[in-house]
Amino acid sequence: MKKILLLTVVAFAALCGNAQQALWGGSQIVSPEINPDNTVTFRLVAPKAVKVELTGDFIPTQKIKTQYGEFDAPGVAQMVEKDGVWQYTTPAPLAPELYSYTMLVDGLKINDPSNVYRIRDVKSVTDVFIIPGDRADLYSIKDVPHGTVSKVWYNSPTLGMNRRLTVYTPAGYETSGKRYPVFYLLHGMGGDENAWTELGRASQILDNLIAQGKAEPMIVVMTNGNAALEAAPGESSLGFTAPSMNLPKTMEGSFETHFPDVVNFIDKNYRTVKNKKSRAIAGLSMGGFHSLHISKNNPDMFDYVGLFSAAIDPGKDVKSPIYADGDKKLKVQFDKKPALYWIGIGNTDFLYQANKAYRQKLDDNGYKYTYYETPEGHIWKNWRIYLTEFVPLLFKK
Amino acid sequence: MKKILLLTVVAFAALCGNAQQALWGGSQIVSPEINPDNTVTFRLVAPKAVKVELTGDFIPTQKIKTQYGEFDAPGVAQMVEKDGVWQYTTPAPLAPELYSYTMLVDGLKINDPSNVYRIRDVKSVTDVFIIPGDRADLYSIKDVPHGTVSKVWYNSPTLGMNRRLTVYTPAGYETSGKRYPVFYLLHGMGGDENAWTELGRASQILDNLIAQGKAEPMIVVMTNGNAALEAAPGESSLGFTAPSMNLPKTMEGSFETHFPDVVNFIDKNYRTVKNKKSRAIAGLSMGGFHSLHISKNNPDMFDYVGLFSAAIDPGKDVKSPIYADGDKKLKVQFDKKPALYWIGIGNTDFLYQANKAYRQKLDDNGYKYTYYETPEGHIWKNWRIYLTEFVPLLFKK
Repeated sequence: MKKILLLTVVAFAALCGNAQQALWGGSQIVSPEINPDNTVTFRLVAPKAVKVELTGDFIPTQKIKTQYGEFDAPGVAQMVEKDGVWQYTTPAPLAPELYSYTMLVDGLKINDPSNVYRIRDVKSVTDVFIIPGDRADLYSIKDVPHGTVSKVWYNSPTLGMNRRLTVYTPAGYETSGKRYPVFYLLHGMGGDENAWTELGRASQILDNLIAQGKAEPMIVVMTNGNAALEAAPGESSLGFTAPSMNLPKTMEGSFETHFPDVVNFIDKNYRTVKNKKSRAIAGLSMGGFHSLHISKNNPDMFDYVGLFSAAIDPGKDVKSPIYADGDKKLKVQFDKKPALYWIGIGNTDFLYQANKAYRQKLDDNGYKYTYYETPEGHIWKNWRIYLTEFVPLLFKK
Repeated sequence: MKKILLLTVVAFAALCGNAQQALWGGSQIVSPEINPDNTVTFRLVAPKAVKVELTGDFIPTQKIKTQYGEFDAPGVAQMVEKDGVWQYTTPAPLAPELYSYTMLVDGLKINDPSNVYRIRDVKSVTDVFIIPGDRADLYSIKDVPHGTVSKVWYNSPTLGMNRRLTVYTPAGYETSGKRYPVFYLLHGMGGDENAWTELGRASQILDNLIAQGKAEPMIVVMTNGNAALEAAPGESSLGFTAPSMNLPKTMEGSFETHFPDVVNFIDKNYRTVKNKKSRAIAGLSMGGFHSLHISKNNPDMFDYVGLFSAAIDPGKDVKSPIYADGDKKLKVQFDKKPALYWIGIGNTDFLYQANKAYRQKLDDNGYKYTYYETPEGHIWKNWRIYLTEFVPLLFKK
């Protein structure tokens, strides 16, 4: 009887595999396969396809002309069929990095059916893999003490709603009895409270930097910067709505106005050090914009500020008091000498000129800041780099 | 200057959309669309496809014959092309439920490119949607107080490793100062510590039942039942490995033996009520098997036990002391009169007969239990139902 049951389980599992294979044309192929020399092979079984292509951030971009001008568009590589399997191997080893890709089957964009590791970025779901080594080792899960990542709801009296955020507490937080500094880390347009842990590998970066003794143990708070929303798509009472780049109440002052509610909530619910020199704020793109304006409007709240590929100025028609008297507020902020004011941007970023102008303003006024320039543009690769550079500088004074 | 910047952002966003559409053949179609009468329409743009099919758990199954016998296999519906869009509408309204589906383009199984809501179950990633109403309202995120969901690492001295688990703490936990009962909720073969929150909608079910006053506020702990692994695929130092149904150390005693390490960790790190009548354990399939044997080996630990479509007996060749003297241990457990011993199973489940034999044994010995039988088989739909039935019965004594 016992043996029969076990066999039934095995048979059932085998059947599921076989039935699936027979019905859905799947096969036990490996894709992507990271070869010993760090070239990568991609595979797809699509017997009736005429043309299969691969697109990914490791394939050289191509110039396209649009009504807005000439731009770099994602590159495309041809996959070649052999023995019923479409295949592509990168011509050269890939450098250590977190890469993303999708496939194009006769023009239809699909995720790699052999890869379950996917990340959503606004509306796009791409397949991902990591080439380990160098800085990318910070993006990998290592056998080191791990912090806790929590999805937490807070009430905002200012916005009159319950909202969701992601909190990283460092390894040992639960039992140490200690108080910790807090780093508020903000996402960009179209993002949400999941962006920094999913696309940004924030919890891996923090775990690894802390384990290596390169960063102070700290709490990291990742908010949702879309003030009209409770939470990320699919995580609120709105249900499974389509993600959007065009959300209301993102860069018009509401999020910045409500931000002290977040700080109050965190200070009330976590063992924090409740002072300026134990608080940092940084963000990417729209989140850099938020960080700039929140820190300027609350000059006694944050001693560390990071602008990652930040948008700088609000739209001309935006009338929130948050953006009024900007230069005066900036003077107040810098008169108090922030411990760190950090600006990072890629040299092909579409916000590069705006950042250059902003740096000029800081220079003209003698406001001290740290500047970090990278190649490439407005991409997660750069934001992960900026995070690994910024975090070791925090709370060292 | 400000206006130019804002326009640049808008143009950039528009370009991304256009470029993507032009390059990847995507379009702004809605799929799935839940129509007002709860029929559902699915759409796909695949201009070069010859045949597009839809498979999902709302499509009637089909009989297939294999070397193992005749089985129900997933049903398939034909999508029809009209004006360049392949389309299928269910012939009748769907009942409230969380449904999953994928598409087949000329035999290639793909996820719906228009739906970002997907769930991985072992190796399969399927698209999902919810028809609200009735019991499925418990699976939806409502505007009620929400608990916190945390990914936490614990050390197991017994296994000699750090392992990951998911902890749900009820709304108000952080500041209430109160102690809470604990419900340990275990997954099945091929699953992991993410299964109950992702496939099982556990945090939504708990939030909603607690908000309705139907369940006691409680901590829910969701472990990883694969004792050889640290964490779910992609969440451990093994990296982005392929998920597998055939893992070592799953039903041979290691997980059960180490389980007191989990209880000790939770009692040390959370405000728990540390006694038998404030602890419950339940699981599905392999997790039901684990719950059965853990509770039997620790008769003073759990007053509430739930077996959801549980495997009952270990394989004949499995020699762990965990499974020795089973009937004697069961007598000890039932002599102490558990507050609830709950068995749920579907009437077409491949473990139905094994459960029937087990119930007979309980009956023969006069051991009291609660039995709940549903239609259908070994599926998440049933396990969500069992969770909604089981949780309101906990910690009421």
